[in-house]
Amino acid sequence: MKLTFDSIIELAQRGKRMKLAVASAQDSHVLAAVETAHKIGIADAILVGNRVKIEKLAVENGISLDGLEIINEEEGEKSALKAVEMVHFGEADMYMKGLMETKAFLKTVLDKNVGLRTDRLMSHIAVFDIPGYDRLLSMSDVAFIPYPTLDEKRQIIDNCVGVAKACGVAMPKVAVLSSIETVNPKMPCTIEAAELARMNEEGIIKDCIVDGPLSFDLATAPEAALHKNASGRKIVGDADILIFPDIQAGNITYKCMSHMVNHRSGCILTGTKAPTILTSRSDDMETKVNSIALAAVVAQQNNNNK
Amino acid sequence: MKLTFDSIIELAQRGKRMKLAVASAQDSHVLAAVETAHKIGIADAILVGNRVKIEKLAVENGISLDGLEIINEEEGEKSALKAVEMVHFGEADMYMKGLMETKAFLKTVLDKNVGLRTDRLMSHIAVFDIPGYDRLLSMSDVAFIPYPTLDEKRQIIDNCVGVAKACGVAMPKVAVLSSIETVNPKMPCTIEAAELARMNEEGIIKDCIVDGPLSFDLATAPEAALHKNASGRKIVGDADILIFPDIQAGNITYKCMSHMVNHRSGCILTGTKAPTILTSRSDDMETKVNSIALAAVVAQQNNNNK
Repeated sequence: MKLTFDSIIELAQRGKRMKLAVASAQDSHVLAAVETAHKIGIADAILVGNRVKIEKLAVENGISLDGLEIINEEEGEKSALKAVEMVHFGEADMYMKGLMETKAFLKTVLDKNVGLRTDRLMSHIAVFDIPGYDRLLSMSDVAFIPYPTLDEKRQIIDNCVGVAKACGVAMPKVAVLSSIETVNPKMPCTIEAAELARMNEEGIIKDCIVDGPLSFDLATAPEAALHKNASGRKIVGDADILIFPDIQAGNITYKCMSHMVNHRSGCILTGTKAPTILTSRSDDMETKVNSIALAAVVAQQNNNNK
Repeated sequence: MKLTFDSIIELAQRGKRMKLAVASAQDSHVLAAVETAHKIGIADAILVGNRVKIEKLAVENGISLDGLEIINEEEGEKSALKAVEMVHFGEADMYMKGLMETKAFLKTVLDKNVGLRTDRLMSHIAVFDIPGYDRLLSMSDVAFIPYPTLDEKRQIIDNCVGVAKACGVAMPKVAVLSSIETVNPKMPCTIEAAELARMNEEGIIKDCIVDGPLSFDLATAPEAALHKNASGRKIVGDADILIFPDIQAGNITYKCMSHMVNHRSGCILTGTKAPTILTSRSDDMETKVNSIALAAVVAQQNNNNK
């Protein structure tokens, strides 16, 4: 059976209810998403921010705050530090950006005393549910790491595999993308792709099947894989995870998918102590709720592994 | 009125009938596309190759060769050199790959004596007609130039502008893509994008409007441009041409578009003495005919400029 975003939401609903700490929660779109997430039973929430503004926005936009905790902290940075501290000390399980600049938000994620840094690489993952594609399709890194080194790509794969497992994919197929399907010494990303596949064969990259270099069609289109006579390959149009050469290729493809392809999606920051949500204003309500659901299943997995 | 691939086909039909020289024409898919192009009045053709095989394939696949010229030359390389020579000397206006490896075909394009090289950069252009996007959308370079320098990007833009004009776009908008919309000194492609925009303002890059760096959504999605408050930009979701940082970003996005987005498309090699078609086996019949139509309008323009 195909895993979809409904499957992720169901997983989140079935597991232990996780708690979200929101930094500078006085944002109507974020409040609406948190209300929905709470209502459908995928997350509890603590709203840290300007209580008066939060309550005013709720009234103005018909948002019910029933069952949501509010902590009043009017100053932006302090509000974020308060929220992230609760996640740091395990009083909350996920961290979410409200009305503040991404840069200021990330500063709190990286805070030495109360932040969410671990010894793992922090990376971004976007998960797509595309009608016509027979599985969830994750993409990384499309937003956070500009030009990952080979070792950073290895860690990006580790992070993605963790998320895929949390979503119910037992042995995800990881396609390391490039413009071509063979190693070309003049294209460093093809050498790295082959090296990542080798590291997987030698057991250095675990719990997944890595193949590369692969073109986008060989990775995601079974009929193209047939045409190209891809026998002997481990991935023939059935990738679960796409790893990009760099943020340029990743971000442009991600935005193409987001704007040109019918889909549902969600994304989180991973490699952190707890899954972190920094959706942008241009994301619609559904995407924000999907991102909370994605964070919730990852938080549940973290919880189970403790 | 929106320009579509039907507009391109109509342009080709209205103009002077151009002649296609096909190298190693004994390929049923290529023959079928050439038959259609001839039948709908967008191109005449000279089929160079193994006459017996060509005629056998025609019978087997119900393809009519009426009105198509055949030149018998059984040996592959010789056949291609004969075909490209006819284009070189103006006996034909477009050059197309039949049953042969791309590498061997390109060797004939580059042949010093009878090839199609000019003092311009050779580059690839893919033209998409996407329902929901209000204009034709061209992408370059997604297949030919691995890591274009700034000057090569300038020439890629020139080549694309020529094709856009041939398709009826008077003043094309050229978006130089990147993951972000501002110059970041750590991302060379953003610096180059800003430089290309400056070269356009100074009149070094002519007959078009260049803006960059631009993210894919700012370039192609008007509603995203609104969200991001892109006032003051020259392109707000209305790009005609997308220029990619490198072949990795270009090819992966191109394949994503080709396989995930409902579209019609065609592509040619440009910067050559005459437009050159090297569709791949996995391209469907319609894409092959579209590519011939695209080559025909470019050839007509070349003809008018003589």
